[in-house]
Amino acid sequence: MRDVAIIGVGMIPFGRRDEDSLLDMLAYASLNALDDAGMGDKTVDAVYVGNMGAGIIQHQTSIASSLVDRLSLLPAAADVVENGPASGGSAVKNGLLAVASGYYDYVLVAGGEKMREITGWRATDFVATMTHPEVEYPYGITLPGMAGMFTQLYMEKYGVTREHLLAVAMKNQEMGALNPYAHVEMLLDREGIFDSPHAVVNNPVAATPLHLYDLCPVSDGAAAVILCPLDMAKKLQNKPPVLIAGFGQATDTHTLQERDDPTDLKAVTLAAQQAFDMAKLKPKDIDVAELHDAFTILEIAESEHIGFFKKGEGGKAAAAGKTRLGGQLPINVSGGLKSRGHPVGATGVAQIVDITFQLRHELPKDRQVKNAKHGFTINFGGFGNNVVSFVLKRTEP
Amino acid sequence: MRDVAIIGVGMIPFGRRDEDSLLDMLAYASLNALDDAGMGDKTVDAVYVGNMGAGIIQHQTSIASSLVDRLSLLPAAADVVENGPASGGSAVKNGLLAVASGYYDYVLVAGGEKMREITGWRATDFVATMTHPEVEYPYGITLPGMAGMFTQLYMEKYGVTREHLLAVAMKNQEMGALNPYAHVEMLLDREGIFDSPHAVVNNPVAATPLHLYDLCPVSDGAAAVILCPLDMAKKLQNKPPVLIAGFGQATDTHTLQERDDPTDLKAVTLAAQQAFDMAKLKPKDIDVAELHDAFTILEIAESEHIGFFKKGEGGKAAAAGKTRLGGQLPINVSGGLKSRGHPVGATGVAQIVDITFQLRHELPKDRQVKNAKHGFTINFGGFGNNVVSFVLKRTEP
Repeated sequence: MRDVAIIGVGMIPFGRRDEDSLLDMLAYASLNALDDAGMGDKTVDAVYVGNMGAGIIQHQTSIASSLVDRLSLLPAAADVVENGPASGGSAVKNGLLAVASGYYDYVLVAGGEKMREITGWRATDFVATMTHPEVEYPYGITLPGMAGMFTQLYMEKYGVTREHLLAVAMKNQEMGALNPYAHVEMLLDREGIFDSPHAVVNNPVAATPLHLYDLCPVSDGAAAVILCPLDMAKKLQNKPPVLIAGFGQATDTHTLQERDDPTDLKAVTLAAQQAFDMAKLKPKDIDVAELHDAFTILEIAESEHIGFFKKGEGGKAAAAGKTRLGGQLPINVSGGLKSRGHPVGATGVAQIVDITFQLRHELPKDRQVKNAKHGFTINFGGFGNNVVSFVLKRTEP
Repeated sequence: MRDVAIIGVGMIPFGRRDEDSLLDMLAYASLNALDDAGMGDKTVDAVYVGNMGAGIIQHQTSIASSLVDRLSLLPAAADVVENGPASGGSAVKNGLLAVASGYYDYVLVAGGEKMREITGWRATDFVATMTHPEVEYPYGITLPGMAGMFTQLYMEKYGVTREHLLAVAMKNQEMGALNPYAHVEMLLDREGIFDSPHAVVNNPVAATPLHLYDLCPVSDGAAAVILCPLDMAKKLQNKPPVLIAGFGQATDTHTLQERDDPTDLKAVTLAAQQAFDMAKLKPKDIDVAELHDAFTILEIAESEHIGFFKKGEGGKAAAAGKTRLGGQLPINVSGGLKSRGHPVGATGVAQIVDITFQLRHELPKDRQVKNAKHGFTINFGGFGNNVVSFVLKRTEP
C-alpha cells in the first residue's frame, strides 16, 4: 500500500441551509478543499461522495455524477458510498484504498446531507431506515429509542450518571460555540436546563433516560478532503500533509437484540484496534480525538471501547474535565455531532477535516490542542453495527 | 497494484420475485458466489453492495450492514456503492481497488435491485432520479425519452435503421431464452411484433422511434462475485481464476443537452480505452462482450464507441449476424439487459458473472463462445454520464 496523505480540507457552516441544495453544499465544501490543497494545475482523478439520504430526502440518485459535472472535474470517476451515519467515513476509506492501490493519484472525497427538508417524525423515520429492514424497522424502533435503552443499560452496568452525560453536553456545546462551522452556537446554562424547576420544559425527555440536550441536532452540511500519495503531497510544498496512518472498519450484528451484551460495542473496539495496528500506535499516543456523539452516552462509551479510558471511567473522565481542551485527551474540540451538527453523510468527513485543522496547528488558541501530532476519529454507523475509524498523523514540513 | 482475480460468481434468476426481499436476493446470490469460490475455511474481509434504489423503493439504507449480518460474515467491513445503473460496476471497481491496495484479501461484491415493487410511471420515475436534479428531473424527462431522442439523432447521423435495432432485439431475446437466469424467456416473432398489421398493438411506440421491444424490462435480481489477489487465487486449486486485467471509469456532462455532440458517448470511449490500456489489449483481442443494452440503440452505439466496429458499422454488423454466437464478436450472449433483465444495481455485477462463465468455458454449447480468452463489459450510468468498463482474462489452470 502506498502511504496516503490529506492535502486539502474544506467545510461549510453546518445548520439550516434552506437556500442551498444538497449539490450546492457538496460543491461549496469541495471547492474549499480544492482551494486548500494548492494543487496548481493538477486535477482530480476520482471523486467519492458520502451520503445516506439523497434517495429518500431529495428523491435523487447519481449525485456523484452531478457533483463531478458541477465542479468541472470531468471525466473523473465518481461514486456515492453509503453506510448510514458512517457514510462519510466509508467514503474516505474508499478514497484511501483507491489512492493506496496506485490506480488513482488525486481523489476528492465529499460528504454531505440536507436533512432539514424533513423535520419532526419524518426526520426520525429517515434516520430509522438504517435499522434492520425485517426485525427492527417494521416494529417502529427509532435511533433515539435504541440510544435510550442503551444508556439505561450502560448506566446500570458501569455507573454512568446524568452528571456525566451533562458534562459531555456542556463541553461540546461550549466548544461548538467557538467553531464557526458548528450548527449549535448556544451555550448550555446548567441552572436553566438541568437544575431549574423548569427543566422538564427546557430539556424534556427525548427517550428515557436521554433528554433533548443529550441528542445531536438535525442539520444540513457538507465537508470534503483531497487525498494523494504522501510522496506527491510532499512535493506540493503547500500546508503540511496529514498522513492517514491507520484505518479500520468493523461490523456487528445489525440488530441490538442479537448481541450477547448490548452494552459491548464490539465494532468500535475492533475498528479502532485495526486503525491503531496499521498506524503502529496505541490509544495513549493520541493527542486529539473526534468521536461520534450522536447521543452523549456514545462519547463516553466510545472513549472506553477505543481504549482511551477503562470501562466505567469514561463518564468520570468527562466530568473531571479530562476530555476538555487542555485535559488528558481533548475529545470533540469541534463541538462534535452534538454541537457541530450531524448531517449524516458529512459527519465522517467533517471529523477528518477537524482533526486535520488540529494536526496542521492552524486553529485559534481557544480551540487548538497544543503540539497535536496524532489524531483519531470514529464514525458510528447504525447502532454500532458498522464503524469506521482513522488514525491521522502530522508530517513535518 | 496487486493483480486481482475473480474466484467465485453467483446469480439468481432475474424476473419478478415477489416472494423475496432485496436482502434475500442479495444473500442468495452471495451464497452462490461463496459456494462457487471454494474458499474452504477462509472468510471474507470486506463486502461491497451495488444498489441504486433501496432508499427510494424499499425505504431502507445501510443494506450492506444487513447483508454482512445475514451472511454471518461479521465483522467484515461493508459499504453500499451507488452510481445509478452502473452501481454494480462501481461496486466491483471498489472491491478491485480494495484488494489491489493490499488492505483486504477476500472481498465479496454483490449487486441487487428489487424494482417490481413499483411499476408503471413509478418505475419510470425511479429510474429518472438519475437525471440532473436541477435541469432535467424537474422538467419531466425520462430515460426512455432521452433514449428516443438519442436514437433519432443516431439514426440520422449514422444511418442506423429499424432493421438494425430489431436485429439486436431478436438476437438478445433469442439468447436470453437459453439463459436460465434471464427474465424474458419469450422468443420474438418477427412477423408478429414487427411486420404484422397488429404491430402497433403488439409492439407499441415507447418513445419515438423506440418501440416496446427496444427496451429492457423492469426486473428484480441479484448477482455476486468474490475477488482475491491472483497469487492467492492460484493456490485455491478451484475453478480457473479469471483475472481483472483492465478497469476504466469515466464521466461526461450530467445532462445530454450540454454535450457538443449528443451522439458522442465520450465516457464510453474513455472508460473502455482506460480498461484496454490497463490490460494491454485492444478491442480486436476481445472474444466475448457484455454491453449495456438498456435500449437496443445502446448496444449498437457502444459497440462503435468501444472500437469493436467503426462509427456507422455497428448496426450493420448486428444485422449481418456478426455479433451473434459464432460471429466475429459475440455480444450479450447472456441475453443482455434486454432479456436477462436490468435490476439496476445488479447489472454491472451480472455482466462480470456472465463473462466469467464464458472465460471458464462452462456454459452449454449453444451459449459458449469457443476458446474464449478475453472478455469485456461496459456498465452505462445515467445517460452515459458515468460509465464503468472491465477487461477480464482467462488464466490457465
